[in-house]
Amino acid sequence: MPSSPQSDLPSIVDIRAAAARLDGIAVPTPLLESTLLNRRLGGRLLVKAEPLQRTGSFKFRGAFNRIALIPEEDRPRGVVAFSSGNHGQGVAAAAAMFGIPATVVMPADAPAIKRANTEALGATVVPYDRFCDDRDAIGAEIAERTGATIVRPYDDPGIIAGQGTAGLEIARQCRDLGITADAVLVCCGGGGLVSGTALALADAAPGVPVWCVEPEAFDDTRRSLLAGERLGNPADARSICDALLSPTPGVLTFALNRRLLAGGLAVSDAEVRQAMRTAFECLKLVVEPGGAVAIAAALSGKVPTEGRTIVAVASGGNVDAEQFRQALCA
Amino acid sequence: MPSSPQSDLPSIVDIRAAAARLDGIAVPTPLLESTLLNRRLGGRLLVKAEPLQRTGSFKFRGAFNRIALIPEEDRPRGVVAFSSGNHGQGVAAAAAMFGIPATVVMPADAPAIKRANTEALGATVVPYDRFCDDRDAIGAEIAERTGATIVRPYDDPGIIAGQGTAGLEIARQCRDLGITADAVLVCCGGGGLVSGTALALADAAPGVPVWCVEPEAFDDTRRSLLAGERLGNPADARSICDALLSPTPGVLTFALNRRLLAGGLAVSDAEVRQAMRTAFECLKLVVEPGGAVAIAAALSGKVPTEGRTIVAVASGGNVDAEQFRQALCA
Repeated sequence: MPSSPQSDLPSIVDIRAAAARLDGIAVPTPLLESTLLNRRLGGRLLVKAEPLQRTGSFKFRGAFNRIALIPEEDRPRGVVAFSSGNHGQGVAAAAAMFGIPATVVMPADAPAIKRANTEALGATVVPYDRFCDDRDAIGAEIAERTGATIVRPYDDPGIIAGQGTAGLEIARQCRDLGITADAVLVCCGGGGLVSGTALALADAAPGVPVWCVEPEAFDDTRRSLLAGERLGNPADARSICDALLSPTPGVLTFALNRRLLAGGLAVSDAEVRQAMRTAFECLKLVVEPGGAVAIAAALSGKVPTEGRTIVAVASGGNVDAEQFRQALCA
Repeated sequence: MPSSPQSDLPSIVDIRAAAARLDGIAVPTPLLESTLLNRRLGGRLLVKAEPLQRTGSFKFRGAFNRIALIPEEDRPRGVVAFSSGNHGQGVAAAAAMFGIPATVVMPADAPAIKRANTEALGATVVPYDRFCDDRDAIGAEIAERTGATIVRPYDDPGIIAGQGTAGLEIARQCRDLGITADAVLVCCGGGGLVSGTALALADAAPGVPVWCVEPEAFDDTRRSLLAGERLGNPADARSICDALLSPTPGVLTFALNRRLLAGGLAVSDAEVRQAMRTAFECLKLVVEPGGAVAIAAALSGKVPTEGRTIVAVASGGNVDAEQFRQALCA
């Protein structure tokens, strides 16, 4: 009998254990802000700078924590991950730190920098077609053949707990600044980062509303929260946010998100490019499209900023130079 | 009788006092690194990320400290600064925090973003021609007419002490990482940042060699260190490093630098663009041309990196979108 989602859900205890494992290993990324940007918004925008994390995104947190949970006797057979890029880099870097092999099944159209960096970190990359192939089947076949452990991108308690360490840091950093956030905005693909962050904040900063932010064409979690059940995205949906193109909410992540989130917001590609440009100008931070949706929600008025303090998580910075150049024309 | 330079030189006591004034006000900027970049260099490169400082450069440190040293009865008449841009923004932001007026005399060809931000921070900008006008005379006239205090960009003990707080942070951050740097590389225009940093490190991390890095066409401090006297740059010299176009070393800064520095290095505009691109790709940090010379010195092999730990200060990130787009084509 398969276990119910509820019994697999991580708790704050798992997040605190993850934080202990990551202490001195993951970067405690800063909360950045800009006087000029705050003045423009009439409030205070604090940006959690995960592009400064190892491998350029928050994904390292979950990957390292999940690999640490693999029984020692299974570790030598390595890990396999399927990923739009950042999770693959996180798994590759974490596996290298444990000294075990990693295989990453990656969309053939992922940004070149993500593939190149994953390989440079020592992983073997297996490309697949995002719109035709079944990445789960490819990953399962590799796992069966090699005995490697599958490290899922989001629907895994160890992954969610690892990503949740970003939420613990936000709570501590807000305390250190003497502020209470009026809202925390977090990007959402499969929902690992936002569910972990919301779980951490529910304990460490209770009462602070957490919103997920998605690209307009991939707002499956926003619509699922409204419907009360997991809905998918149209097969022909497209977005520049390559890191957030998950087909549906995860089972575990949605079970947490429907309990913990204030709701969902959606932003356009144009709003994302403008957010990337603003992060460049005002924060001096390189943010990739999928990493910029939470900032975009604040800048475009999807949440009110006047007289309020908003925390937006910038989740990653792995963007090709050409795509970044285009955003700077916005 | 004018006082001798020696009697005006700041000491480690002044830097520690500046650090106390800036505590909770300036950003203690992180030391960033990249596993992939370290592998490429065969060593460890730690980048002090001053683009994440208030106003996007280290200049805020010195400006705030210097204004704090103005007698209270003189402060209401405000301050005047002449600046290629970053010092002007630092002075504007610091003056606003003290609630006093600021006038900034700025080259007419400074990047648009620097002028716009200086004005948005509440300062009055007075443009001048970098190659024809005498900015000192313009600043002196304003000071005489208004009673404002001149806040010099580098040749002032309070400025040098403020910039030196970056050096104290580097020493503490290296201690926290359990490492001893084999070299610290710092950009050099008039020499305020490098002299203050060297003064701080001589006390807080004695024995660590500190090098200044300049654009090839503006290597006045490098040549002056070799000659043992202050030399100027050719009148027709040009460089993309708009923040580092000082005509000669300062009197006070050179008195410190000739005593404290291991020597000077020079980098080309092409090496600077490559450093900006590498900071984008590997560190997710926006660095302006003048802010990238120290990274450029490490990447281009001006100092050996194999098996060594190098700290490079990235001093600022105030670069126009168009110039950044060009660097990404490098």
